[in-house]
Amino acid sequence: MSKVLVLLSGGIDSTTLLAHCRKGFDRVGTLSIDYGQAHRRELESAQLIAEYYQVPHKVLTLPKGLFARSALTGGDPAPSSPYTVESIKQTVVPGRNLVFIALAGAVAEREGYSDVAIAAHSGDHAIYPDCRPEFLEAARQALSLGTNGKISLYTPFSQISKREIIQSGVSLGVLYHLTYSCYRGGERHCGVCSTCRERKEAFRTAGVPDPTPYEFDEEDYCD
Amino acid sequence: MSKVLVLLSGGIDSTTLLAHCRKGFDRVGTLSIDYGQAHRRELESAQLIAEYYQVPHKVLTLPKGLFARSALTGGDPAPSSPYTVESIKQTVVPGRNLVFIALAGAVAEREGYSDVAIAAHSGDHAIYPDCRPEFLEAARQALSLGTNGKISLYTPFSQISKREIIQSGVSLGVLYHLTYSCYRGGERHCGVCSTCRERKEAFRTAGVPDPTPYEFDEEDYCD
Repeated sequence: MSKVLVLLSGGIDSTTLLAHCRKGFDRVGTLSIDYGQAHRRELESAQLIAEYYQVPHKVLTLPKGLFARSALTGGDPAPSSPYTVESIKQTVVPGRNLVFIALAGAVAEREGYSDVAIAAHSGDHAIYPDCRPEFLEAARQALSLGTNGKISLYTPFSQISKREIIQSGVSLGVLYHLTYSCYRGGERHCGVCSTCRERKEAFRTAGVPDPTPYEFDEEDYCD
Repeated sequence: MSKVLVLLSGGIDSTTLLAHCRKGFDRVGTLSIDYGQAHRRELESAQLIAEYYQVPHKVLTLPKGLFARSALTGGDPAPSSPYTVESIKQTVVPGRNLVFIALAGAVAEREGYSDVAIAAHSGDHAIYPDCRPEFLEAARQALSLGTNGKISLYTPFSQISKREIIQSGVSLGVLYHLTYSCYRGGERHCGVCSTCRERKEAFRTAGVPDPTPYEFDEEDYCD
């Protein structure tokens, strides 16, 4: 029996991955990681999304301060500048995906899953080294060899863009209003941080209505 | 400047690795992981060893129950049977080394280390999949690619035996009486669990006096 553990942040990509995996696997569970991210609000969304899909959901809490300081872990606030390489670079959390994959692998072994799924996608390749295909391939090898072939790494989005993820998600009926992306972590999406801008842009280019109530319009906002 | 973070359990292998790294790197730090192991006594040894070598030492505490139950994480007590494949198999903690390497990688990035060192050795290849050279090679790739080439994995013992580790350690002046191996986790080494037997055997075949006061002789012990 195929049984996949989806790393669920509560954002667009991992929520679409969850919907995608429910079609392709016999059983699906979800794992979120609390690593002291400033945008912990996403963990609430992950919980709601898991409830909506009626799949098991666990949150693993890591020691505070494990990762290097970045805009996401207690450094400067997430940038409100445009969605550019320079502003996004501030949101890199060094070493995060290998930690997430390794932890999900340990949970997968403990609970009898056959696969770990992560929603790394092509839009992140330029900036996040641990989203690139060559990293994912090495992590896949390490996970498989380290578990005697028991656990596979599933990365169906590694060569597609966020726009394509949203398009596939619409056909899967994903309720995007449940998802949360904002790196500022407020109750509503701010609308002006780099991730909110990426979110808006992805809906726009996908030709899909954006269901997100944003706090600010970009035109109205002064930092 | 080369700066290595040594994964230090407090046992023979990682303590020898620490002594080895002090020769080859400009700076050395140590990291121990508290994963709820039954033999938490090893963490005290790790602390003493780091103090002896006057190197920084951090302990990272993972959520209890992360790893699958084994003789080391709250399952049956560590086996007192001979040091055989079957008895050692009970001490496999699935997925452990990838988690340890990934976490050490995140700490290394945070604190400016260039290398992560782990003391996996050839004696463990048969039983622990995550000690084998092919696993270590994949983990090395994943760590390097995931950190944009910033962090290397250093595994100088991957092709040598525990006997050879002890022999090299003696020439480095390692104080083996400070190290702790017993999987039963008592104040003194039990002398009859599989790891104590491995420890005795390694000193014997290395031709090095074993400085360990054991609780039981094998002949006297009835399970």
